[in-house]
Amino acid sequence: MIHHISEHVYAYPVSPDTLNVRIKVKKDLYERISVHYKNLYDHTPHIKEKEMSLILEDEKYRIYEASISVKERHFKYYFKLEKVGEAIHYTADGLKKEIAPENFFYYPAINLDDVPEFPGWAEGEIIYQVLIDRFHDGNPRNNPEKLKDIHELPDRNTYYGGDFAGLIQKLDYVKSLGVKLLYLSPLFSSPTYHKYDVDDYYKIDSVYGSEEELKELVGCAHERGIKVILDGVFNHCSSENPLFQNVLKNGENSPYKDWFYIENFPVDPAKLNYDSFAGQVPSMPRFNTSNPEVIDYLCEVACHWTEKLGIDGWRFDVADEVASGFWREMRKRLRKIKKDVILIGEVWNQAGKWLQGDQLDTVTNYKYRQYLLEFIDGKLTSKEFFNQLNALKSLYKTPFHNYLVNLLGSHDTIRLATYLKRRHPDALRLHYLSLAVTLAMAGMPLIYYGDEIALEGDVDPDNRRAFLWERTEEKPVQELKKLARFRAASEILKKGSLIPLDLDERVLAFRRAYGGESLLVLANFADAPKEVGVKAREIVYGNAEIGDNVLLDKYAFTILK
Amino acid sequence: MIHHISEHVYAYPVSPDTLNVRIKVKKDLYERISVHYKNLYDHTPHIKEKEMSLILEDEKYRIYEASISVKERHFKYYFKLEKVGEAIHYTADGLKKEIAPENFFYYPAINLDDVPEFPGWAEGEIIYQVLIDRFHDGNPRNNPEKLKDIHELPDRNTYYGGDFAGLIQKLDYVKSLGVKLLYLSPLFSSPTYHKYDVDDYYKIDSVYGSEEELKELVGCAHERGIKVILDGVFNHCSSENPLFQNVLKNGENSPYKDWFYIENFPVDPAKLNYDSFAGQVPSMPRFNTSNPEVIDYLCEVACHWTEKLGIDGWRFDVADEVASGFWREMRKRLRKIKKDVILIGEVWNQAGKWLQGDQLDTVTNYKYRQYLLEFIDGKLTSKEFFNQLNALKSLYKTPFHNYLVNLLGSHDTIRLATYLKRRHPDALRLHYLSLAVTLAMAGMPLIYYGDEIALEGDVDPDNRRAFLWERTEEKPVQELKKLARFRAASEILKKGSLIPLDLDERVLAFRRAYGGESLLVLANFADAPKEVGVKAREIVYGNAEIGDNVLLDKYAFTILK
Repeated sequence: MIHHISEHVYAYPVSPDTLNVRIKVKKDLYERISVHYKNLYDHTPHIKEKEMSLILEDEKYRIYEASISVKERHFKYYFKLEKVGEAIHYTADGLKKEIAPENFFYYPAINLDDVPEFPGWAEGEIIYQVLIDRFHDGNPRNNPEKLKDIHELPDRNTYYGGDFAGLIQKLDYVKSLGVKLLYLSPLFSSPTYHKYDVDDYYKIDSVYGSEEELKELVGCAHERGIKVILDGVFNHCSSENPLFQNVLKNGENSPYKDWFYIENFPVDPAKLNYDSFAGQVPSMPRFNTSNPEVIDYLCEVACHWTEKLGIDGWRFDVADEVASGFWREMRKRLRKIKKDVILIGEVWNQAGKWLQGDQLDTVTNYKYRQYLLEFIDGKLTSKEFFNQLNALKSLYKTPFHNYLVNLLGSHDTIRLATYLKRRHPDALRLHYLSLAVTLAMAGMPLIYYGDEIALEGDVDPDNRRAFLWERTEEKPVQELKKLARFRAASEILKKGSLIPLDLDERVLAFRRAYGGESLLVLANFADAPKEVGVKAREIVYGNAEIGDNVLLDKYAFTILK
Repeated sequence: MIHHISEHVYAYPVSPDTLNVRIKVKKDLYERISVHYKNLYDHTPHIKEKEMSLILEDEKYRIYEASISVKERHFKYYFKLEKVGEAIHYTADGLKKEIAPENFFYYPAINLDDVPEFPGWAEGEIIYQVLIDRFHDGNPRNNPEKLKDIHELPDRNTYYGGDFAGLIQKLDYVKSLGVKLLYLSPLFSSPTYHKYDVDDYYKIDSVYGSEEELKELVGCAHERGIKVILDGVFNHCSSENPLFQNVLKNGENSPYKDWFYIENFPVDPAKLNYDSFAGQVPSMPRFNTSNPEVIDYLCEVACHWTEKLGIDGWRFDVADEVASGFWREMRKRLRKIKKDVILIGEVWNQAGKWLQGDQLDTVTNYKYRQYLLEFIDGKLTSKEFFNQLNALKSLYKTPFHNYLVNLLGSHDTIRLATYLKRRHPDALRLHYLSLAVTLAMAGMPLIYYGDEIALEGDVDPDNRRAFLWERTEEKPVQELKKLARFRAASEILKKGSLIPLDLDERVLAFRRAYGGESLLVLANFADAPKEVGVKAREIVYGNAEIGDNVLLDKYAFTILK
């Protein structure tokens, strides 16, 4: 099996004169793969050659890639596949012994808008996700009347009093976790505590404080080198939103009737004769994000706040149900306001559609969580874990890999601590080991507030308990902070490639490499010590015994040189 | 080998509530493949099942496809692959014996702008490409001073006097060829005879007649049911164009300096320090089609003429070097002017990048020509010819297949008659046989003016000889016209699927099927009679002897029921 097409993830520009070409082949078939390339309009026999690098492999396939530069920006190329005593070419017309000019693959031109621009400052950095109401109450004066104590459990519309003032007071704590991106839960005016249903996109909800306080929060974060991103809920709004109210009231005569997916008139929440969040929540009508008026309105909202608050990016809710044309326009407009703004999409499954370079910068990598939990539960070996992860990464262009948002939980999942507690006697050790691995992995680690203190919680609403500040002084939290700051300071962990090692079924082992240097990461998920056959000189983080092999305690995590 | 991703050609909407899903598998592995699907938010155990159809196969792979509808427009699905005594599922997490909810592929939502709209009137219709100057001189008054006789050979800037008036006079001839789309060579003001270098996009070149005459041509064509498309040359312009002249004159101070790909200032045609057509023609500077001002200017040009002339579409020159964002905008703006306008791109190689549904409707299928000539030359068997063609078609979403512009020559290739004459003793028979096959093939057959009279010509400029009207009365031309009109009247040939039959290495055999009916096409490219093992009841077109088998004369072409 050999696969290449001259588009999509197989041929994509990375700079105005450089194209990444990728080829997928069955494992163990070829010893050397090279790409042979030239200017499309160069009719001389001269041709350049570049050996391709193995960048990913899964159970069955290998992905090779090479960056090829042609200053004229017009490309043609083919691949040469070699094994002992044999060579064959892979071309636009399939496998060929001899190459004719018409057999070449063409990439006719790199145009400037084909070259994706990344927010380089964010590559591999740590994200901290907070639900504002559940974090810290810094200003009791803006509290709603009925408040729960932080030790009580939440229900479906509970307030705990968390606010912008509280966040400002706790920024040093956030900083101590090595965090570069503070991701705030929705904060525009909304009838609910969670605010995933906005009734006024141009108003900050007063329950969290004033616009001035929010600006102060952004300023204080920036002073600490922390960027701030907001949760943009543009897939749907609240049924209380005047846009939808207008449709309810005026039906077919409403100027906003094409702003939603209405099945028939009159619109009736009791009948739910319109599309809504998750197809079943009448209070959250879904926008028609293919409508240019909707695109214009919501892009303006995002631009307005990006400029006014000086924020650094957005996490977009239900990004995978919003039209691609919406994201293209959003990207263009936001980048005009702030050229290195980050666009993160909430996507739960394969996300290639939004990661072509003209829409989102990255997505929530929920599959990472799924595969790591399957590994912890013994459903996957360490090798199978990396095979699954690599099969997924092979769907994305390489520059996206170090931006994938690796998370172990969010406000939409059961809490990691609770998931593990129900399945494993040593849940707490596995909890911190999972967080440690995530902090060493390629991608952007996301810490869901409270996971660092092993906060528990079942699915919504229990996964949104109030933060317990008294637990931040515990030893595993201190240890985790140390690792997080190590990552924050390590170009290798943030920007390096990742090479999995198959040392033991229950040990996640991988090398991270960048700029000629590399680190070896070992995480023993077994309930027993493990001796793994790998060479190391020096312990950089954690504990291990280095001899001919490396000896790991049960649940040990270490980074070696 | 099993391949599916939840995007690109593997998962694409065809209507607001219908998704086409496709899976690619190694040949001869499975007996039945089905897709199991439901509303993404339906958490009941109920699931729908649909058997998938084999739509294409090549040497190694089979492509199966199914259309699945979910009225809520939110999809999740997986595939079931069955062989004797065994069944396995293909999921977002790879092959699985048992399915968990998280294993499903997701297509989270069909948005309206994800659904490609096709110019249905054009499906499978015949295109006739004319070089205006070389077709017919209908009005000697607009001729340039120096004119060649139509029996003389052209050089690089020869005029023969062809014009709009001549085209009007010959529309009945065009109609007699079953033509639905008349594709005119460039006609905006230009310093050259071919006009692929425009110096004024808002002016019709007077050498072909007036704007009024062009409007009359469009009107007369429409009266005959013929649509008219123009050649839009938007990748580059003439160096005489005031836009480029301004840059030559004002250098970095020119408001148009970012309209082109300038390497450095001052701009100097002698140094060619800017990108140009084919990277080597100083008189044709290449536009920066990622620049929003350029996009706006050239889209306006196309809209202006579409509206003013009432034309029906465009063939876009060098479409594969123009930015994708340019085509997205062009499509949107043209469709606003005329909702069923057709956008055809000149692309010489794999064209998936432009055929996602939001850019072009179709492309010039030069690979069809390449493979057919390789078959005629004996480099491919009939089976290999279809394998190659199907490998190419597998790169495109299915609704595009019947729009692919199958051509056997153009103003940029050696003439078919000449190519064959240099290689085959029976060149003329092969010539008409190739045209006949093309007229029976799935796609839009393009006849390059003169090919119907077997006009000869080497590469440019010889492939642009004047049309020889005295030859239109010859017998093979009459025969071809009959077949072309048969196609023009046949829904099966225009809209049907194509199923290749492997009957004989030198016989192209295929079924076309549509709406429960089918036709059998047989074309014997051998220099000897052939008896092929296939059943037929009735000769619909051409000659054959029907018995237990079908007997074909050498070079025979026939359509059977």
